[in-house]
Amino acid sequence: MSEIHRASTTAPVNIAVIKYWGKRDPKLNLPTNSSLSVTLSQDDLRTHTTASCSPSYPAEDTLLLNGAPQDVSGARTQACFRELRALRKGLEDANPSLPKLSTFPLKIVSENNFPTAAGLASSAAGFAALVRAIANLYELPSSPTDLSRIARQGSGSACRSLFGGYVGWEQGSQADGSDSVAFQVAPASHWPNMRAVILVVSAAKKGVSSTTGMQTTVATSTLFASRASETVPRRMQEMQTAIQNKDFESFGKISMMDSNSFHATCLDTYPPIFYLNDVSRAAIKVVESINAAAGKIIAAYTFDAGPNAVVYYLEENEKEVAGVFKAALGEKDGWAGKRGEAVQANSVGLDKVIVDNAVAVGLLNDGVSRVILTGVGEGPVRTEESLINEKGEPVSKA
Amino acid sequence: MSEIHRASTTAPVNIAVIKYWGKRDPKLNLPTNSSLSVTLSQDDLRTHTTASCSPSYPAEDTLLLNGAPQDVSGARTQACFRELRALRKGLEDANPSLPKLSTFPLKIVSENNFPTAAGLASSAAGFAALVRAIANLYELPSSPTDLSRIARQGSGSACRSLFGGYVGWEQGSQADGSDSVAFQVAPASHWPNMRAVILVVSAAKKGVSSTTGMQTTVATSTLFASRASETVPRRMQEMQTAIQNKDFESFGKISMMDSNSFHATCLDTYPPIFYLNDVSRAAIKVVESINAAAGKIIAAYTFDAGPNAVVYYLEENEKEVAGVFKAALGEKDGWAGKRGEAVQANSVGLDKVIVDNAVAVGLLNDGVSRVILTGVGEGPVRTEESLINEKGEPVSKA
Repeated sequence: MSEIHRASTTAPVNIAVIKYWGKRDPKLNLPTNSSLSVTLSQDDLRTHTTASCSPSYPAEDTLLLNGAPQDVSGARTQACFRELRALRKGLEDANPSLPKLSTFPLKIVSENNFPTAAGLASSAAGFAALVRAIANLYELPSSPTDLSRIARQGSGSACRSLFGGYVGWEQGSQADGSDSVAFQVAPASHWPNMRAVILVVSAAKKGVSSTTGMQTTVATSTLFASRASETVPRRMQEMQTAIQNKDFESFGKISMMDSNSFHATCLDTYPPIFYLNDVSRAAIKVVESINAAAGKIIAAYTFDAGPNAVVYYLEENEKEVAGVFKAALGEKDGWAGKRGEAVQANSVGLDKVIVDNAVAVGLLNDGVSRVILTGVGEGPVRTEESLINEKGEPVSKA
Repeated sequence: MSEIHRASTTAPVNIAVIKYWGKRDPKLNLPTNSSLSVTLSQDDLRTHTTASCSPSYPAEDTLLLNGAPQDVSGARTQACFRELRALRKGLEDANPSLPKLSTFPLKIVSENNFPTAAGLASSAAGFAALVRAIANLYELPSSPTDLSRIARQGSGSACRSLFGGYVGWEQGSQADGSDSVAFQVAPASHWPNMRAVILVVSAAKKGVSSTTGMQTTVATSTLFASRASETVPRRMQEMQTAIQNKDFESFGKISMMDSNSFHATCLDTYPPIFYLNDVSRAAIKVVESINAAAGKIIAAYTFDAGPNAVVYYLEENEKEVAGVFKAALGEKDGWAGKRGEAVQANSVGLDKVIVDNAVAVGLLNDGVSRVILTGVGEGPVRTEESLINEKGEPVSKA
């Protein structure tokens, strides 16, 4: 039996606080504006990926995700494979003693530790893990920045999952996308007490896909241009300053305003795109009520292309934020485990919310299917836990 | 017993297709952008107002609306009274033989023929009727344009209810508001077959008042400026052309896009303002489905500062539009009467909608409390039906 080469990594989910929406080049996933996200802890949300290659594998590259074969013939995945093979080829050409891994078929196995159906940003973690795992397999000397350029071509926001902590994605100006890369604004250790509670909303059905949606927005929204050209560039600066200063009030206000701005351009699209529903609006009302009770911004909502609410807060305000959600939604899945059990249900805080927002609390109870407790975390981590055994067969760790 | 002077009018509701949102001068109700509306038939929706004055009345001006005394001390109402009295005073000064009506206390009685709680644009009809009735009482030679300048100070959109048919409101540029007046784009007779079905949505509670809301939008939305300065001026031109050409596809598309644009700037406000709810979104989906089935735009939704959907369509498409809503919502109040009974319930059309939008149809059924069938109509009409008898006492016609 011939050689089997393997390497594994885990990669994180990231949730943007300055949103990516709109491509200036759909083929290369070049965005119309820069964006910024928080990388979330892999204890709670991660993709685990093993990349392997062997001259003994069937000729076609394959990818198994949560046990199900995936189509790898799409331009996005092919671009990642092509770029990574070219880098490996460069090494092999420079050093003829290296095995010719670039010529072997790839076999990739991935597992998420969270439900794919939850509508979380699984493609970001997925492509980041895919690119990082192949780079490990190929022993590429590429930096996370270099890999972010490749992962971006798989899924735009994946580029931000190559780093931990607080991560920007510079839109860049080059036509070839060479300067459209991720960069670390600050490591997780700079502001380690950032937490998030994710309210997973049971949506009736999947809305408009984000690729289709964002291009329709670019084409039809008359408000979009000023978001891309004026609003976001200003907020990118303000947000980086807020993170440097660990200024949660600014971080939170900009996050909420930018989420609203993004969804406003969706609504201004023709035909309009709605990702927020009445449950999402209820989450906004509850966050507003929590902040009103605190007399300052201690909780900040943000919504991606779906109804799920991600609420950021600092650890020191856990009782006032996550505690209120636990009092309201304590029966839902997701409170088990270290993080959830540590949250003290705050029924006094909930009572204050109910005074003005009883309807919102009721809507949350009806519409939230589970919660996920998490916080800022690290970038991809190499692991020896392999999802492919020495015979080249997939093994599940799930 | 001394003389009692009386005059009466009815005035219509109007529903904008290019929305008014934002004041450049809150005191004078001067808008940040022009707007355009359809005046709706007074057979279906109207305010009936009798203005009277007498030296024998108690010294305070009074206003009775649907039997309930209203506060007339607010700056808006006072501005209307003051301007109208000044015009009357001019006539009296020029012709000393005229009775000195400008010096007498006013007693005004109003009745709406529709539920005030329905969240329809009752203040527009209310102030238009108030101003028109007092102008009649005072025998002012003022044109509807002149009166629109006064009614605007009572409620911005009231200025458009001084005219029938298709009505614009020119934002104007003068600091004193002298050029911020309504104008008739086309009379109802130009395009008489415009119809509307209004889906009255039972809202849990009243949202943000429009005066507060629009000023928060102006202050905080970063997308608002381009709506006011670029989007609306272009659409005002396009909409007038569509009306001149009786081009429903353009009329409908611009209406829908402008409603979405307005609500997008509400969502981009901080804190965000939501007027649309899941029932409103369901109405949008059903309209999109009706248009998809027709292969062209035959129905156009628009939403004011609330969840009610107003769906415009042409009489020739009544079965394809109102008929689908009748098939879906035939059990609701509002189908009785000449207009509603004439609508043929279109269950075949509804079945087509249900294929892709069963959830939306269900949401409509749960959330719509009544429908109102109406169409384009005339401006204020003088009437001899008085809501105040010869003794100066209110008499109800309701």
